[in-house]
Amino acid sequence: MLRRRLLHHARRRHHSSSSASAASVPLSTPAFAVFGANTGVGKTLVSAGLAAALLSSPSPLVSSVAYLKPLQTGYPADSDARFVFSRAPALLRASSSPRATRLVASCRTLFPSPAVGAEAEPLHESPEKVLTYGGDGSEETKVLACRTVYAWREPVSPHLAAEREGMAAEDDEVRGCVEQWLLEECVAEGGEVWKLLETAGGVASPGASGTLQCDLYRPFRLPAVLVGDGRLGGISSTLSAYETLMLRGYDVSAVILEDRNLSNDKFLLSYLRNRVHVLTLPQIPEDPSDDLTDWFSESSSVFNFLKDALQSFHSRRIERLNSMQRKSKDLLWWPFTQHNLVPQDSVTVIDSRCGENFSTFKIKDNKMMLVPQFDACASWWTQGPDSNLQIELARDMGYAAARYGHVMFPENVHEPALHSAEVLLGGVGKGWASRVYYSDNGSTAIEIALKMAFRKFSLDHGILSESEKNIKNERNILLKVLALNGSYHGDTLGAMEAQAPSAYTSFLQQPWYSGRGLFLDPPTVYIKNESYNICLPQSMQHDPHDLGFSSQAEVFCKTRDNSSVADLYLSYIKQQLSEFSLSSNSEHLAALIIEPVIQGAGGMVMIDPLFQRVLVTECKSRKIPVIFDEVFTGFWRLGVESASELLGCLPDIACYAKLMTGGIIPLAATLATEEVFESFKSDSKLTALLHGHSYTAHAMGCTAALKAIKWYRDPSTNLNLVTDHMKLKELWDGALVMQLSSLPNVKRVVSLGTLCAIELKAEGSDAGYASVYSSSLVQKLRKEDDIYIRPLGNVIYLMCGPCTPRDSCTRQLLKLTMSEFISSNFVE
Amino acid sequence: MLRRRLLHHARRRHHSSSSASAASVPLSTPAFAVFGANTGVGKTLVSAGLAAALLSSPSPLVSSVAYLKPLQTGYPADSDARFVFSRAPALLRASSSPRATRLVASCRTLFPSPAVGAEAEPLHESPEKVLTYGGDGSEETKVLACRTVYAWREPVSPHLAAEREGMAAEDDEVRGCVEQWLLEECVAEGGEVWKLLETAGGVASPGASGTLQCDLYRPFRLPAVLVGDGRLGGISSTLSAYETLMLRGYDVSAVILEDRNLSNDKFLLSYLRNRVHVLTLPQIPEDPSDDLTDWFSESSSVFNFLKDALQSFHSRRIERLNSMQRKSKDLLWWPFTQHNLVPQDSVTVIDSRCGENFSTFKIKDNKMMLVPQFDACASWWTQGPDSNLQIELARDMGYAAARYGHVMFPENVHEPALHSAEVLLGGVGKGWASRVYYSDNGSTAIEIALKMAFRKFSLDHGILSESEKNIKNERNILLKVLALNGSYHGDTLGAMEAQAPSAYTSFLQQPWYSGRGLFLDPPTVYIKNESYNICLPQSMQHDPHDLGFSSQAEVFCKTRDNSSVADLYLSYIKQQLSEFSLSSNSEHLAALIIEPVIQGAGGMVMIDPLFQRVLVTECKSRKIPVIFDEVFTGFWRLGVESASELLGCLPDIACYAKLMTGGIIPLAATLATEEVFESFKSDSKLTALLHGHSYTAHAMGCTAALKAIKWYRDPSTNLNLVTDHMKLKELWDGALVMQLSSLPNVKRVVSLGTLCAIELKAEGSDAGYASVYSSSLVQKLRKEDDIYIRPLGNVIYLMCGPCTPRDSCTRQLLKLTMSEFISSNFVE
Repeated sequence: MLRRRLLHHARRRHHSSSSASAASVPLSTPAFAVFGANTGVGKTLVSAGLAAALLSSPSPLVSSVAYLKPLQTGYPADSDARFVFSRAPALLRASSSPRATRLVASCRTLFPSPAVGAEAEPLHESPEKVLTYGGDGSEETKVLACRTVYAWREPVSPHLAAEREGMAAEDDEVRGCVEQWLLEECVAEGGEVWKLLETAGGVASPGASGTLQCDLYRPFRLPAVLVGDGRLGGISSTLSAYETLMLRGYDVSAVILEDRNLSNDKFLLSYLRNRVHVLTLPQIPEDPSDDLTDWFSESSSVFNFLKDALQSFHSRRIERLNSMQRKSKDLLWWPFTQHNLVPQDSVTVIDSRCGENFSTFKIKDNKMMLVPQFDACASWWTQGPDSNLQIELARDMGYAAARYGHVMFPENVHEPALHSAEVLLGGVGKGWASRVYYSDNGSTAIEIALKMAFRKFSLDHGILSESEKNIKNERNILLKVLALNGSYHGDTLGAMEAQAPSAYTSFLQQPWYSGRGLFLDPPTVYIKNESYNICLPQSMQHDPHDLGFSSQAEVFCKTRDNSSVADLYLSYIKQQLSEFSLSSNSEHLAALIIEPVIQGAGGMVMIDPLFQRVLVTECKSRKIPVIFDEVFTGFWRLGVESASELLGCLPDIACYAKLMTGGIIPLAATLATEEVFESFKSDSKLTALLHGHSYTAHAMGCTAALKAIKWYRDPSTNLNLVTDHMKLKELWDGALVMQLSSLPNVKRVVSLGTLCAIELKAEGSDAGYASVYSSSLVQKLRKEDDIYIRPLGNVIYLMCGPCTPRDSCTRQLLKLTMSEFISSNFVE
Repeated sequence: MLRRRLLHHARRRHHSSSSASAASVPLSTPAFAVFGANTGVGKTLVSAGLAAALLSSPSPLVSSVAYLKPLQTGYPADSDARFVFSRAPALLRASSSPRATRLVASCRTLFPSPAVGAEAEPLHESPEKVLTYGGDGSEETKVLACRTVYAWREPVSPHLAAEREGMAAEDDEVRGCVEQWLLEECVAEGGEVWKLLETAGGVASPGASGTLQCDLYRPFRLPAVLVGDGRLGGISSTLSAYETLMLRGYDVSAVILEDRNLSNDKFLLSYLRNRVHVLTLPQIPEDPSDDLTDWFSESSSVFNFLKDALQSFHSRRIERLNSMQRKSKDLLWWPFTQHNLVPQDSVTVIDSRCGENFSTFKIKDNKMMLVPQFDACASWWTQGPDSNLQIELARDMGYAAARYGHVMFPENVHEPALHSAEVLLGGVGKGWASRVYYSDNGSTAIEIALKMAFRKFSLDHGILSESEKNIKNERNILLKVLALNGSYHGDTLGAMEAQAPSAYTSFLQQPWYSGRGLFLDPPTVYIKNESYNICLPQSMQHDPHDLGFSSQAEVFCKTRDNSSVADLYLSYIKQQLSEFSLSSNSEHLAALIIEPVIQGAGGMVMIDPLFQRVLVTECKSRKIPVIFDEVFTGFWRLGVESASELLGCLPDIACYAKLMTGGIIPLAATLATEEVFESFKSDSKLTALLHGHSYTAHAMGCTAALKAIKWYRDPSTNLNLVTDHMKLKELWDGALVMQLSSLPNVKRVVSLGTLCAIELKAEGSDAGYASVYSSSLVQKLRKEDDIYIRPLGNVIYLMCGPCTPRDSCTRQLLKLTMSEFISSNFVE
């Protein structure tokens, strides 16, 4: 029956994805993965010895051990499951149990390859053995269930066997079977149930699809038992295997290796600084006719120690996970969070991340679980990696830290800083930028951009004299920015001053904020009832017929430059600028700063691209430097590498962060034209741009940027790129989006690139940033639908990475569409 | 003769250090390190085959190959150097050379262990062989010099052999020999000289001291040739070995492995995404009597390919290094740098870092070299790691990236954020702080601290009403900070507003700066002419007898609280505060912000700790929240974990960054008391602290902080801790510091913890931030003395990490003391 279920499961997930999908892991049954430093180091001996030690354990009582060998080659001659099945009972018998024990042991192989043929049958459906032994008190029943999932005949690596014998086992199928096995309830009489998964070959041996063992099982992140190598050279292979597991985010619970009189264990323990148990087993007899009875008997104390070590590892893990909500409430201070409004049990405990999914600790139906949650806010809009890119980035982070650590930047150069500057200037900066100024985050990138713009403006407009770069008439000069209402550029004061007043800028939040800008009301674009509409600000009036579109392409079409709407925009802008200059002669609009196309923190609002294009053109004609804040929009967030491609015009200065490093590490860059750069040159240090941060252009950040930017752009790694490589295919199903836009509770929808945002209808205090209107929906999505949503007031959104498979997006979108909260007028 | 030189060299560096020292590497002679995925995979066959291919190479002509086996065990039965010596000539003969070749081949063993005994002698000083063969045209001479440095008899890992046979080989000795070998000029007739270093065992096999092969040779960072494993399981061990090399910052130039019909090479090439050459060798005969002549002959095309691959790897490397200065001038925009004042050839090309040292690319005496430079500004005061901590951090960075990538923070918790909060609160926050607010850098940590302080002050002083947290009388309220002249808190506008006017804050730099503070003139402390003195600001007058001290301990002594100087300070402070409050009734001093003990960017000025203590006490009594900016001073920078230990008083809020993560990755934290935290609590999101950055509490940063903070504190890893573990021993030799303070060109010296700063005498435009007065000294120190200094105007300083060995500090200090610029009145 299990076989049928697994088969069904495997077939259902028949699409093969090279990127790891999410997986649930129950924590009430301890589960460990047995990895090998190499092939032939004795993984199966360890599995068998450990299974026997567990089944013999009086305290805590273990009533059941489930052993899984997902991939077996050399079958039926070799069968690790059969070995465990046939040895563990004998070992158990040898152990002294005060009570009579009835052991129900079974061994099954689910999918033998066709090449295995009939020969396998007796083995692959071997019957249960029932053994009774021990004292004559009350009888207790224990279970040992050994399974092989896929078995191939040739004794080679599974990827070769799969190819040669014509039985594939795609990653999702294998993972589906493992997940099913982990979730499966075992018959257990009061005692603990343990699960042991034995991998194939070494830690980095390929599975059937070619995915490495360590990568294949990564979504489960089972604690590892690493079977090391006790021979000459074994220190090296054991440490390297350990590091390969570290580079996949595994925790190694114990290292166990054969003692070959080389004291490899002592060395390993010392090198690993006692962070992990290192155990030794007696030397394994080389005589193949030895049935190992004596060896197992000699080893039993080691396996008991191992069992204790794993039990204690497991309880400490559970204890940590259980205490984290409470401790976080006691010690942490979260940004943007009213702590009074966060009950302890609504704190999300994140155990790890794999690609687009968190693995979160939850108690579901009274059971502790690790449950995947789709990170629908892309962790504050930073995330790019699928699980493959995450592994590549992790390895690169280790490399960059080992090669450079951090090295300071002024007057220096190192390869990551130089090469990432090259790919920035050849990508988002192509056609306009010639300099890269690194900093730490979006906010600092903006402060730097403003300083650049102000200097350029001051020189162009005679506020500073070119010869001396001295200020000519300081007293009455106030430089301001031209910006749009609803804009947001970061939380440091300088960035804040460039945005319109909002909840973030009140005296309560930032007593020093004054808002040094002229803030225009922009026209916005949205989808409602399956059509695209422009919403004009109150101050503009126009024939509504010109304000609807049947497709997004029309909205972005450059022919609109000649429309009457373009004239409307231009006259509005000109009027605003002339009103400003009339009202003050000591104030200057010294920079235009906009988020191109989408205002993020302002509520995922799409600004009419025509309006921004007209505005940019007008500012350029007045020699007002133009800053694009691409911190949110850059690097494919909106489906193209730079949102300036959508706008069809270029800035003088632009800021990047978030997705730039793949979302793995903070780094920002302000790009500028050579003319802007020139305005800081002179013979005095005092005219240089005196702004920097300790970690400017740190090697790890630049290395991540280099890898991520290339990864997104490369059609061999980013399968979402459409053939001309200049944009992503549609990720959010158009039909579903249109359907959403027609739901009664939905006010508007914006869907572009990796973003799909929905504004819910809300009135009064339910609208706006402080609104907790959507919080019950958010809690439901987090708790029941396993989507990690974080709303912007009454705006909820889904966000994926540039490489996220479309079907994953569709799954999330369907959950949202089916939500009662959204689809009905009835508010919970 | 070479032996004597090496011997001398090895003995001179007789102190054993567990941390890697710096090393020079010439680049005119290509040098590669041959590493193995395991022992017994054929490293020596590859060395021999490669040596022969190189010596046979017509273009580019190679005239000399030097082969080095630093550590040999199983000697004399096994000798890899002898193998290469005995085989390569035969292989060379087999190759077709158009010209007659005279090959001078030699094989020497420098230090056989006593256990090797007399038996080794004939081998260990084997005579040169001179062979002539090939055509009868003009004769060309080629050289093959094979060396073993240390040889032990037992065929076990060197660390065991060294222990058992009583011949140690400390890391510095081995590295000294390797460096000497790399620098040694080979007899070469026009052609290239190549160097091949063959490691022992696998990549992570221990050397004689127990240091792993990959760690032992890391200071040279020779490009690696990785000899992989072609057997079953070989994909795993090869990939793991590759990852171990990546985790040490090595570049792998090629992977080469035996073909065992498993297509391991194809798999590896595909997994490594064609980033590295993967070559296969024919299967190695297992018959020990086979002299391998046929095998080498079959393999010659592979070795030729390998040779070509390495040659091209080397030329691309040189090309990149050579182009970096020019490219950096074209593309980068450095912070705090007037690009016009940086000639292309003064750009420092940093190839890597190892512990405290950069490895920089230089052309010295017309030769390209990688030269170590002591990073005397600790890369803008961030650096903590010695080479051991760097490796640990690199591995942790890979782990954290693989486990978490980045996960967003509000309402969430993950282990690194929680545990680093625990160590922060149990360390620098002990006794006062209860909450940790993470952010990105010092500047953002300060902006957050100010927001915290202003809220607390506003509630305490009735500016906001507690019930609603609404502002009561917004119109006329201006909150200001109380701060010290010369202070610096970062470059974002909010942080800047809290500092006194300076070159950084002019209209030219930041048109929005207004300086919202009352800035007091602090008394300072310095060493001159071997004594400690207090320099009072002009506004204070006191008997000079009370202003001198014979030791630093006296300066920090708490009994000074009862001195007349304390009274003087208090009355000055009270007077300033009352003058302020008289002059304005709408302005409030809502926070005290100070850098405790040392003002960093202000010129490494020591403020009289008594003054700061009096100031803090006075502010606390007035309910003005106290902020310590410990971005620079935190985490042992001044010899104690927190500078508040030196001051003897505690803040309400404190900011940390820089050293917090060991200097490997940006992260900041603002710590606060529970009272401060409470002032943001209510039932509305609008009163929460609405300040955050995308990467808040990112897992890599928190993981690094956790590791670094514990490392500094642990006497088993930080050997500079004095017995009570609460402070560092004296790192800058007291006698030398006193000597420096008496030099005529020195105005003052400050030496505390990891810092030793010297203000040079300078007048007028030579003084202050814009000064280029010290630039010739700086260039000399960088170019000739290999110390990377970056001055603050006329202040130069040396800075080490908390774990830097004292003798390394002394070496740098001696170079400075001996500098003519400093010791004489004569200015170059």
